Amino acid sequence: MKNDIFLKACKGEKTERTPIWIMRQAGRYLPEYRKIRQRYDFITMIKTPELASEITIQPIEIIGVDAGIIFSDILVVPEAMGLKLYIDEGKGPRFEKNIQTESDIENLCVPDPTEKLKYVLNAIELTKRNIDVPLIGFAGSPWTLFAYMFENEPGKDFKNAKLFIYTSSKLAHKLLEKLTLAVSDFLIAQIESGADAIQIFDTWGGILSYDEFKEFSLKYIAYAIERVKSKFDKIPIILFSKGTWQWIDEIIATGCDVISIDWTFDIKKARIKSNEKVSIQGNLDPVVLLSEPEVIKREAIKILEKYGIGNRHIFNLGHGILPDTPFENVKVLVETVKSESKHYHK
Amino acid sequence: MKNDIFLKACKGEKTERTPIWIMRQAGRYLPEYRKIRQRYDFITMIKTPELASEITIQPIEIIGVDAGIIFSDILVVPEAMGLKLYIDEGKGPRFEKNIQTESDIENLCVPDPTEKLKYVLNAIELTKRNIDVPLIGFAGSPWTLFAYMFENEPGKDFKNAKLFIYTSSKLAHKLLEKLTLAVSDFLIAQIESGADAIQIFDTWGGILSYDEFKEFSLKYIAYAIERVKSKFDKIPIILFSKGTWQWIDEIIATGCDVISIDWTFDIKKARIKSNEKVSIQGNLDPVVLLSEPEVIKREAIKILEKYGIGNRHIFNLGHGILPDTPFENVKVLVETVKSESKHYHK
Repeated sequence: MKNDIFLKACKGEKTERTPIWIMRQAGRYLPEYRKIRQRYDFITMIKTPELASEITIQPIEIIGVDAGIIFSDILVVPEAMGLKLYIDEGKGPRFEKNIQTESDIENLCVPDPTEKLKYVLNAIELTKRNIDVPLIGFAGSPWTLFAYMFENEPGKDFKNAKLFIYTSSKLAHKLLEKLTLAVSDFLIAQIESGADAIQIFDTWGGILSYDEFKEFSLKYIAYAIERVKSKFDKIPIILFSKGTWQWIDEIIATGCDVISIDWTFDIKKARIKSNEKVSIQGNLDPVVLLSEPEVIKREAIKILEKYGIGNRHIFNLGHGILPDTPFENVKVLVETVKSESKHYHK
Repeated sequence: MKNDIFLKACKGEKTERTPIWIMRQAGRYLPEYRKIRQRYDFITMIKTPELASEITIQPIEIIGVDAGIIFSDILVVPEAMGLKLYIDEGKGPRFEKNIQTESDIENLCVPDPTEKLKYVLNAIELTKRNIDVPLIGFAGSPWTLFAYMFENEPGKDFKNAKLFIYTSSKLAHKLLEKLTLAVSDFLIAQIESGADAIQIFDTWGGILSYDEFKEFSLKYIAYAIERVKSKFDKIPIILFSKGTWQWIDEIIATGCDVISIDWTFDIKKARIKSNEKVSIQGNLDPVVLLSEPEVIKREAIKILEKYGIGNRHIFNLGHGILPDTPFENVKVLVETVKSESKHYHK
């Protein structure tokens, strides 16, 4: 591996500058991605290792990020458990049938990832042979997958999922336990296939009420981390939990190595809370990348300055890059972070 | 006024039980509301004082809440400033033309509310003659109105509004100053027409980045509060800022009398932070009201218990009631709070 500063920053080791990668960096803002997308549908792209690997490598070569993240989707785990996926054009992947009853939950299996998710593992193996930066594997958090399993129209109130935990908490816990096993087995398999770090996406933790977050999301994330760490204690685990400043102390305490924070978090305060025990990834508002070079430079430097001198910062956005981001703006961001961050690594 | 426990709780005075009202309580979940809605469109309903007043009174009589809130919409202020409204059926009110340029901003006026918003003031006067509980007036926060002024499709990323503050911050401040004058003049006029308390809805503060919230939202809220307080220092001001736990100390310090918190806030921690200087309104997840009586009772009691013994709690939801809420469930909530809260007022 030629460039391992991302891994060093995850572990708090000394680096010459701040590493950068971008959530959803293998995606629609890249003209090279759109070319492939014209010929294949999304599901074919994630299920064909050669395509998934090619797309994973694109931002590493074109944008010059310090880590790759395997091109896939968090919904592959529920699919492997038994919920068939289809593409609702313009809206993204959806399940053919949502979870509604106890027998729906019982019918779900804890899949063997080397069988049911072999295409992701193959894509990881293939990618690892062709890149000289670390590769990140990932999964959705149990609660976030749970939330999608109950909704035809995700991204709104997640009414069905929340209603289920309020009215059928025992069954909800049963499903979350299954999901935790499936998620952690999959993360372990990704590491065994060559992933150098993993990220857990708790995109919808922030919609839960204060107590429910701990009971239905955080507890299962901590359990998944424990299962992965018991097999691979040296592989960094990044935890991205969106809109959850109110639980930051508990998030830091899950056993993860890196917390990934959105733009509503103050990175300076987050660093103080972290007490240098975890690294911090983030936290530029993706909307900034829709603006112009001077604004992008100004906002990137603001974050570097706020984090201050130290080795435990990984630059990233606070959420996935927006599909309509001009590709040149992303280059400006990466170059700014690469050059300007040197001042904070003396 | 027969029942003023809502006002007493705003001021921290002793009451026998916890008062309750419900955000968006005059709305679609009520069969009586839907009857009127069949005959008139939304804009006619808010612009006809007799209709607005009748709708305002419905939940007071039917559900038995301890305060009314005038039936209106936060977008009436931008309309009075010069942005014409129309109804996009199924989606709600929209502007015919959004703000895009400097001259769009210059063309907006700071309206005289006794002229341009007379229909709201008349509805308040009419309502006051017919109720025996306090009446709440309201307005959107300057930033929240700003956010809507830039978007055809609000409720998503508010990309245009955010992009504008990143790239044209001076102009953004100019518009926010205008909005602050318009909002505070309107709140003052509502008090002069009989409103006993007012609420500022900062629904979209929580989408801003950490520093931008203070610069583009909180600063203008504090200024609006200052302007209202300089005329009416005894009228309680409630500040609802959604998804903003990270700024709770600053929100408490704005000069408001009550903070209204969503379900992601821990009401116990919020009370400790408030140091009994402000009252706390909230914070049931509206999804709970879609469930069943036992769950509603359990969750309501949980919040009463968490707040604990004291006079500074106003029971409410963490956001507006969902339109598909069964009306009987709301009655269960109100009855539970009325009877159970007595244990916390010894």
